[in-house]
Amino acid sequence: MKALVYEGVERLEMRDVPVPTVKDGEHLVRIHAVGICGSDIHAYLGHDERRPAPLTLGHEAAGVVEDGPWKGRRVTINPLVTCGTCSYCRSGRTNLCPDRQIISMPPREGAFAQFVSMPESNLIPVPDSFSLEKAALAEPISVSWHAARVALEALHPSMDRQALVIGGGAIGLAATLALTAMGITEIQISEPNAQRRAYLRNQYGLDAHEAPTKSAPIVIDAVGFNATRAAASELAQPGGVIVHVGLGDNDGGLDIRRLTLQEISFIGTYTYTEQDFRDATQAMFDGRLGALDWLETRALEDGSTAFKDMRAGRSAAPKIILTPWGPPSQT
Amino acid sequence: MKALVYEGVERLEMRDVPVPTVKDGEHLVRIHAVGICGSDIHAYLGHDERRPAPLTLGHEAAGVVEDGPWKGRRVTINPLVTCGTCSYCRSGRTNLCPDRQIISMPPREGAFAQFVSMPESNLIPVPDSFSLEKAALAEPISVSWHAARVALEALHPSMDRQALVIGGGAIGLAATLALTAMGITEIQISEPNAQRRAYLRNQYGLDAHEAPTKSAPIVIDAVGFNATRAAASELAQPGGVIVHVGLGDNDGGLDIRRLTLQEISFIGTYTYTEQDFRDATQAMFDGRLGALDWLETRALEDGSTAFKDMRAGRSAAPKIILTPWGPPSQT
Repeated sequence: MKALVYEGVERLEMRDVPVPTVKDGEHLVRIHAVGICGSDIHAYLGHDERRPAPLTLGHEAAGVVEDGPWKGRRVTINPLVTCGTCSYCRSGRTNLCPDRQIISMPPREGAFAQFVSMPESNLIPVPDSFSLEKAALAEPISVSWHAARVALEALHPSMDRQALVIGGGAIGLAATLALTAMGITEIQISEPNAQRRAYLRNQYGLDAHEAPTKSAPIVIDAVGFNATRAAASELAQPGGVIVHVGLGDNDGGLDIRRLTLQEISFIGTYTYTEQDFRDATQAMFDGRLGALDWLETRALEDGSTAFKDMRAGRSAAPKIILTPWGPPSQT
Repeated sequence: MKALVYEGVERLEMRDVPVPTVKDGEHLVRIHAVGICGSDIHAYLGHDERRPAPLTLGHEAAGVVEDGPWKGRRVTINPLVTCGTCSYCRSGRTNLCPDRQIISMPPREGAFAQFVSMPESNLIPVPDSFSLEKAALAEPISVSWHAARVALEALHPSMDRQALVIGGGAIGLAATLALTAMGITEIQISEPNAQRRAYLRNQYGLDAHEAPTKSAPIVIDAVGFNATRAAASELAQPGGVIVHVGLGDNDGGLDIRRLTLQEISFIGTYTYTEQDFRDATQAMFDGRLGALDWLETRALEDGSTAFKDMRAGRSAAPKIILTPWGPPSQT
């Protein structure tokens, strides 16, 4: 099969690689759409020691089951594979499973390829009327859904239902949509890229600003750099909650004195639980998260260029989806 | 009246100062016992811009009401004065009141003095059988009670009831006692001072270590320095909670990447709510927090030496209590 393989820093190559071996309890999925994540870019730049070259990246995928009783079923993939038996899994916090694996990280190859093998429990059926390109948004949307849920659960009930979202990429936009679906009515989103910011304003009517300016009881840092954490800890209201999603850098930024004197919670979040993934995809299918047309589709062969464009900020759409079997109309 | 006045960096002097003017709704309290807090030391070293010299420090006080219908009543003082009308006060989070004042910080003079004026609602009656020296522990114990309550409320119910407490001073010891009273059975406490550590082990049978070594779902950082935050973020279990009480420095320490990948909450806490103060003092009076004999009593005149001894780590007892009216037997 064809796969876009990360060969070294800033090097992606189309290769012929073996079709994955399907283990017991797993299905082979023909990948029709797979999104490029910020963490793929991070790995591509050589900044993620968990993802050493050579490796097939990509973990935001949807496709059609190729084998067994599910053959022909259209599915979106929960890429996080967990043990199901540890205390975290048994309590529903599957994302904290110490044996968690995610496709695109050894030992599991990723989905920038024509096929992936996945456990049946990681496959979520997609309604016929819902495109597989949009279904490939399930993974980033679940990340944001989880962050929004965690923020709301941690928020003191007396506080206003307002939020600040830092970062207008897929995670920030999806967090805004998730918070809105959960009843937060007043949200400011910040995005330094002017083209992206105009897109958020014009296409979605969002209150998008170049830099965050408005204090809020909930702050979602969907970027995760020193500067965004500094802004988050400045703008979180006393007694409020910062949810930190990004993995930009690990280099300070928090005003710990203010977090302490003003009792602000800083909560790290990683991916989503199985239930979050189910809830988020249901919200997508129900239309509660809007039209979900904030994506741009390109062929997998053009993936290397897509990475370069994302890196250079040349894409206004928050998400680029790659198609390993040709344009969507042919799948 | 006599007062121990902070005159400048590392300078405390006994002075004759006017007895405080008693405002409407307030009572004059004759101070019989007042503890030295880490934050007093911090101010004394010139590290707290909120407490400029000249100023009477001290906010952990107990005494006897001098005037009005409460005259003669033995009380311990909640030193945090709040507005009672803002949204934080109305929702019970009085410690987040934007107009909060604390004695020992302008515009309110502190309790290293023979008298303090306080609103009646800040005075908690002390049972006759309970000494005023022990009653002066109410403030630091309330800080720790609040931190323990916040930690337990934030902890996922599936996690083990275990804790790590970093720092074996009054806040760390009281946090250990509060957590124990709340049902946490397995607690490690770390304290680098050998004399203090031996005291915690021998007098209280605590699992005291020179440095923190044991991971736990709850970590209380009762010190608040770069190194203790680094230890806290290394030893908090995935999905666990770090509660940060101290204001040692504001200079990093957190492993933000680990907090994010392992979904650890870092929660700043400041003082206590009015309800926490009532709950903590009730637990003290009921005996739920043990004998509360971890204090050493000195005359207010010897306060300057006491500060120097604390600064040099020459006091094994976690708390030094100063007595402005002579030794306890005479009060």
